[in-house]
Amino acid sequence: PLIAILPGDGIGPEVCREAQRVLEAVAPGLAFEEAAVGGAGYDAAGHPLPPATLDLAKRSDAILFGAVGDARYDRLDRALRPEQAILGLRKELGLFANLRPAKLFAGLEDASALRPEIARTIDLVIVRELTGDVYFGAKGRRTTEDGRREGHDVMAYAEDEVARIARVAFATAQGRNGRLCSIDKANVLETSQLWRDVVIEVAAEFPEVELSHMYVDNAAMQLVRDPGQFDVIVTGNLFGDILSDQASMCAGSIGMLPSAAIGSGTQGLYEPIHGSAPDIAGQGKANPLAAILSGAMLLRHSLGDEAGAARIEAAVARVIAGGARTPDLGGTMTTATMGDVVLKALA
Amino acid sequence: PLIAILPGDGIGPEVCREAQRVLEAVAPGLAFEEAAVGGAGYDAAGHPLPPATLDLAKRSDAILFGAVGDARYDRLDRALRPEQAILGLRKELGLFANLRPAKLFAGLEDASALRPEIARTIDLVIVRELTGDVYFGAKGRRTTEDGRREGHDVMAYAEDEVARIARVAFATAQGRNGRLCSIDKANVLETSQLWRDVVIEVAAEFPEVELSHMYVDNAAMQLVRDPGQFDVIVTGNLFGDILSDQASMCAGSIGMLPSAAIGSGTQGLYEPIHGSAPDIAGQGKANPLAAILSGAMLLRHSLGDEAGAARIEAAVARVIAGGARTPDLGGTMTTATMGDVVLKALA
Ligand SMILES: CC(C)[C@H](C(=O)O)[C@@H](O)C(=O)O
Ligand SMILES: CC(C)[C@H](C(=O)O)[C@@H](O)C(=O)O
Repeated sequence: PLIAILPGDGIGPEVCREAQRVLEAVAPGLAFEEAAVGGAGYDAAGHPLPPATLDLAKRSDAILFGAVGDARYDRLDRALRPEQAILGLRKELGLFANLRPAKLFAGLEDASALRPEIARTIDLVIVRELTGDVYFGAKGRRTTEDGRREGHDVMAYAEDEVARIARVAFATAQGRNGRLCSIDKANVLETSQLWRDVVIEVAAEFPEVELSHMYVDNAAMQLVRDPGQFDVIVTGNLFGDILSDQASMCAGSIGMLPSAAIGSGTQGLYEPIHGSAPDIAGQGKANPLAAILSGAMLLRHSLGDEAGAARIEAAVARVIAGGARTPDLGGTMTTATMGDVVLKALA
Repeated sequence: PLIAILPGDGIGPEVCREAQRVLEAVAPGLAFEEAAVGGAGYDAAGHPLPPATLDLAKRSDAILFGAVGDARYDRLDRALRPEQAILGLRKELGLFANLRPAKLFAGLEDASALRPEIARTIDLVIVRELTGDVYFGAKGRRTTEDGRREGHDVMAYAEDEVARIARVAFATAQGRNGRLCSIDKANVLETSQLWRDVVIEVAAEFPEVELSHMYVDNAAMQLVRDPGQFDVIVTGNLFGDILSDQASMCAGSIGMLPSAAIGSGTQGLYEPIHGSAPDIAGQGKANPLAAILSGAMLLRHSLGDEAGAARIEAAVARVIAGGARTPDLGGTMTTATMGDVVLKALA
């Protein structure tokens, strides 16, 4: 199988390097090919998602993605900014489902801003829709009749878009504790009302999953007050962007959490949830575990290698329990050394 | 001055009662007039915001609002559901600015889900725009050409809508620690890009305020990780709905936090941020302090009575420091007894 490595900007390359080393050790038959993306893509080829990069992504069986973004590109037209790379990949490859597990690793109770007794209860997966919503609706500027500037973006979902992400979420809940909470703002938004209607229709296909609904404002409270109440959450692109980052922070260091973007086939894009962190780039301070764990998700979802995925996850749990700590976790271990100890723990 | 009392549903009436008693004690010259709103409005007059209620609200100098909502009304058309009352009042009265202070009361360190050392640092005000955004844009259902159901809502802001809320926020920051953080999703949304452009333009009028910008997903993380970094936050209607509830929960019991909705004049609507809590309605279990503190905001913003507002706030701080606790704070004190002890502390 061919793995596309898209390291991107900032700490992306250094964390991808460690994740690739771990994948090479666990799944020896893989081929890797690298391409520039994000700011690096713009520098190399004048576009955050150069044609050669998109082509590699399309040919690949799975993509390991680092991170994109740097203030240097903030003044570019939106279409040329690094973030467009990730939006473009999701859309072009039809990666409509984002899986974001949030769970506190044993030994990291002190890394969460939540009280340890609350943080310990977090074990949830957010299933976020990735290719619709206000992200991809018509958008633009106009001048109103009376000469004022106005900006607009259309939020919309069609029933099939909701149904397919709902099915991913119900199936995820089936494989866990059987509870799914759908989050919307149906008391205000028509898009949310359609979302809720369709989720309820799809629920008939999954009678063994217990479905509940929550408004997004309440969900933002509940993720702080009692995150342990959630098993699987399903929500739209915009609410998912906000809530999944919030949930990650509740679970402790964002240097520990992986994510997957998948579609209807087995291809997927795997990335640490942390950003490019340009302030610490190239200094060996980045925590590579989120990228390494993204590699585990890659093996599980795209290559069907559950054993390899579990081996990586167990190795990471072992090094954390053993006290390995990069600076984000209060330690001094370098990026490469953390990669080394994970490799050792695999053996 | 005439105060409209709109108690609404669930625990709304019982917390409004205590807030009115406190206002009567602190500001003897006030006249009070009550009207039905929300589910109670629907029951009494077939509409969540009956014409007589809207008329009273318009005639009044300030509105004390309880809470609206009950699952009994969930199956009504959206236009008849209790929430429409609050949306209608905001729009009809031009109450475009929501002020939501979030601060931990000394003595309630254990009520927050955050570690006490983090919770103690929270002292911020969220300024949320209330009459624009995806809340009030065109919305509806349609059937696509190929026969699929679709729901849509238009998100939009015009420059004057952004400028006036920005001015409220800059002025609020001026009266505090001089730091304003504007929250948007300008890397994806045109509405946000216009928002950011206009906020930067308005900043020129307030050279002594330090302005920063943050994406909403990062803000949801930072409010958990390090809420003490914020002084004043300004954001749109939808992001403000989510972030203000999140911030409230970080600050501890939502039974303690008031809010104000103000416009360009002195009229305002004041309400506890908690909801109608139908499960505990009528049992004397509700914490009336958020409503009582909303009364303090009413005196300050609508009646210019800073001394009266400060007296109420000091009395509430005193009873909390003295150990008064309703069930939401882990105690057994009833709603009315909490009102009594605040009245006593005023003396
Ligand atoms: C970079 C940005 C466009 C992106 C998003 O909003 O989807 C990011 O925040 C994410 O969650 O992957
Ligand atoms: C009831 C609902 C429409 C309302 C809102 O979303 O504005 C509420 O959540 C609030 O924050 O006041």
